[in-house]
Amino acid sequence: MKLRVLDPEAIERAASPGLVLDAVRDALIAHAAGRTVVPPPLHMDFPDAEGDCHVKAGRLTDSADFTVKVATGFYGNPRLGLPANHGLVCVISARTGRIRAVLDDRGMLTAWRTAAAGALVTHAMARRDATTAAVFGTGEQARLQITWLAELRPISGVLVHGRSMERSRAVCDWLAARGLDARPASADEAAGADMVLTTTPATTPVLKSAAVREGTHVTGIGTDMPHKNELPAALFGRARIIATDDHDQCLDHGDFGHAVRAGTTAEDSDVAAGVVLAARPARADDAVTVADLTGVGALDAAVASAVLDRLDP
Amino acid sequence: MKLRVLDPEAIERAASPGLVLDAVRDALIAHAAGRTVVPPPLHMDFPDAEGDCHVKAGRLTDSADFTVKVATGFYGNPRLGLPANHGLVCVISARTGRIRAVLDDRGMLTAWRTAAAGALVTHAMARRDATTAAVFGTGEQARLQITWLAELRPISGVLVHGRSMERSRAVCDWLAARGLDARPASADEAAGADMVLTTTPATTPVLKSAAVREGTHVTGIGTDMPHKNELPAALFGRARIIATDDHDQCLDHGDFGHAVRAGTTAEDSDVAAGVVLAARPARADDAVTVADLTGVGALDAAVASAVLDRLDP
Repeated sequence: MKLRVLDPEAIERAASPGLVLDAVRDALIAHAAGRTVVPPPLHMDFPDAEGDCHVKAGRLTDSADFTVKVATGFYGNPRLGLPANHGLVCVISARTGRIRAVLDDRGMLTAWRTAAAGALVTHAMARRDATTAAVFGTGEQARLQITWLAELRPISGVLVHGRSMERSRAVCDWLAARGLDARPASADEAAGADMVLTTTPATTPVLKSAAVREGTHVTGIGTDMPHKNELPAALFGRARIIATDDHDQCLDHGDFGHAVRAGTTAEDSDVAAGVVLAARPARADDAVTVADLTGVGALDAAVASAVLDRLDP
Repeated sequence: MKLRVLDPEAIERAASPGLVLDAVRDALIAHAAGRTVVPPPLHMDFPDAEGDCHVKAGRLTDSADFTVKVATGFYGNPRLGLPANHGLVCVISARTGRIRAVLDDRGMLTAWRTAAAGALVTHAMARRDATTAAVFGTGEQARLQITWLAELRPISGVLVHGRSMERSRAVCDWLAARGLDARPASADEAAGADMVLTTTPATTPVLKSAAVREGTHVTGIGTDMPHKNELPAALFGRARIIATDDHDQCLDHGDFGHAVRAGTTAEDSDVAAGVVLAARPARADDAVTVADLTGVGALDAAVASAVLDRLDP
């Protein structure tokens, strides 16, 4: 039997926002309940080419499939006119080990599951009447987090804060083309929105806790390594609810860990993002809430399986 | 650009024994010289399905590519009429991270590089006038080790020892169809051949040291986990030359390690298989020599790259 390969166009056709949001919601809930398996990843460095390769596997224990994801980042590629990231996802039967398909997704599924997780958690934790959103950062996730959140609730206006005004304007134009009212803003102004999303590779906080108003929800998705840091420790000290997608991971290399080590919050102060999604928590109108999302490998499995099941039921 | 996938037929056409033997020889020499990178593998277990999944990466530092190999073994599959093993190899540029191709090899390349390593090392270490060969085991490697060795030197006769006479006869028939004179033999008789190869999953030695004659070379390729053991510790005590494909690995989970822990040989008594291949060692006609091969991930990279270069120079 010939190995089945799904090209980017087929994946894009199959992966509607509804499908991805459903798969990610289920996977975050399963992860919170301990119904996922995520082994330690495999990693290689290519210092001469400013490159690295990560291989991550993930499984929902009640799913018929698991996934192995190969992702490379070679950061000198753009100078050669090539994309920095490449990758694919193998969907493998957990019953027979047979490779059901290779998804030639070029990193799309990772981008989508990251956007879906941020949008779902932000929607669940924000005030019901929150309508303004702000995004820190000007990359792919800055765009996706806002558009996927807009799938879940109306957004009356978007503030975009980036270090480059040109890039901030480009994000605003991209959002405007999708029917969203967006404009560049200073960090302090952006931090004053009802819903704040940070999507940067920053190593020091991108906003001041004092600029965040009461009643605001803040989701950070950019901190995925110990040296990165987007959200100030003081913000966690103010937060009435703190959600983490994976407690150990967020403690080890998320903004939550920085805050715990700074002493502004306790190590046991967080609740699992999947718990928040399963039972949207009651929140006071003046409460500050924070989510720290570091990325969970089991989401890859959920999204890739869902795409494949859509094409091949 | 569409993801390139090589099917088993294309791989089989490209991978001549000469190509695989050359690639494996170069890779073992590079490994001995420290010119390889083999990160710790990724591993998942599926106890409900008697299954496991290993992901191994490997790189020759002077090669333009590296590989990520996904291999599953689901040992209940044969009861369902399915093969136990599945897998594929991704060949990835070490300069740009781009996936050059996916080799849908179903484990063939691993089998071939294992056979090539055994044949090359046996040929280099055996007496120049050694002509009789014996193989312990009746699986795919029992067949391949002998036929690949026959690519490198004439073999006058083959003795096959397995626990099942029926399976031993099947191996003999298979070898006879390839022009080799083969017959089943007892363990003691087989251990008396000039060149002895063990290819079993045994957990206790398959031959007695006393049955091995002076002047014999013995290569073990079946011991790849700490609880496995094919060659008796006493044989290492008699050996004038001991070769290992990877010193640390063989010490940790090879027959060499069992012998060191039994005190029959010293921890520094081995020489790298790549050194043996680079400079075929002088050996007395009455010397016993032993090779312990546990499998080196960089060989996958070498063979997969060579196959792809042959098809796509």
